Amino acid sequence: MIVLGIDPGTARLGYGVLRKDGTKLTHLTHGCLETPKGMPQPERLSYLHDALNALISEHQPVHVGVEKLFFQKNVKTAMTVSEARGVVLLAMQGSGMAISEFTPMQIKVAVTGYGGADKRQVQEMVKRLLSLKEIPKPDDAADALAIAYCAAVSMVDAKRRV
Amino acid sequence: MIVLGIDPGTARLGYGVLRKDGTKLTHLTHGCLETPKGMPQPERLSYLHDALNALISEHQPVHVGVEKLFFQKNVKTAMTVSEARGVVLLAMQGSGMAISEFTPMQIKVAVTGYGGADKRQVQEMVKRLLSLKEIPKPDDAADALAIAYCAAVSMVDAKRRV
Repeated sequence: MIVLGIDPGTARLGYGVLRKDGTKLTHLTHGCLETPKGMPQPERLSYLHDALNALISEHQPVHVGVEKLFFQKNVKTAMTVSEARGVVLLAMQGSGMAISEFTPMQIKVAVTGYGGADKRQVQEMVKRLLSLKEIPKPDDAADALAIAYCAAVSMVDAKRRV
Repeated sequence: MIVLGIDPGTARLGYGVLRKDGTKLTHLTHGCLETPKGMPQPERLSYLHDALNALISEHQPVHVGVEKLFFQKNVKTAMTVSEARGVVLLAMQGSGMAISEFTPMQIKVAVTGYGGADKRQVQEMVKRLLSLKEIPKPDDAADALAIAYCAAVSMVDAKRRV
């Protein structure tokens, strides 16, 4: 079964796609959806929604992990990213897959076993766990793979809800 | 032409619909989309998206005003409401109407001429400006009518973008 990880954002949204066969995880792909600077937010959201639907159609995931925001400082950024998150949840809900949300701490613990791990340690572990030759680029895509990993290992028997 | 006002939210989303003929504004309808307590956020967003599309289909607005959030305290609420806002902007963008975003201050000034007006004063002015018999209920719907009013009077020649 296919598991998706999403690191939400409007300028840049990271995604990672894994295949899970029993306990074996295989990296399929990762990348970023990017929207041009200066594009109005409604157009960005619409672009992301279409691109997410295309990603879902291509890979047919049964489970998605989406990062939960945990902002304390920049409320404006938190609100913009949340708008993108709303569109992500909508697209995922529309396809009937299981949706899990994880905090940055949960993701770190799942990937490294340690909640105090830094970005580089998480990326290094993602590389090892998924047998990649290099640390995935850019950061948002590496984060999305970490989220997909977290979603995959947290699945007991996620089923399609529709 | 038809102008829509949206007060975003996930538990309750207010809407107001006005007709604008030259400088004349006529109240058409207002109300709230509500989602049950305890419903998961992705389902709520999906419900709201469908209901907004039904509202657009029914009224065929050419311009929508959406309230901009201006939170400073409760970041968690700001993020949840922003997710709904993302879905609102997506639905509006999908229909090709002109989208304007207004801060609470801009809405107060447009409706009462005074940025320090309280909720009751805004509601009272909405009632008078739209020749309603009573203050519209609930509050979210009254707010949405104030936003629609603000969008309508701010239009010079909003055109459908597609």
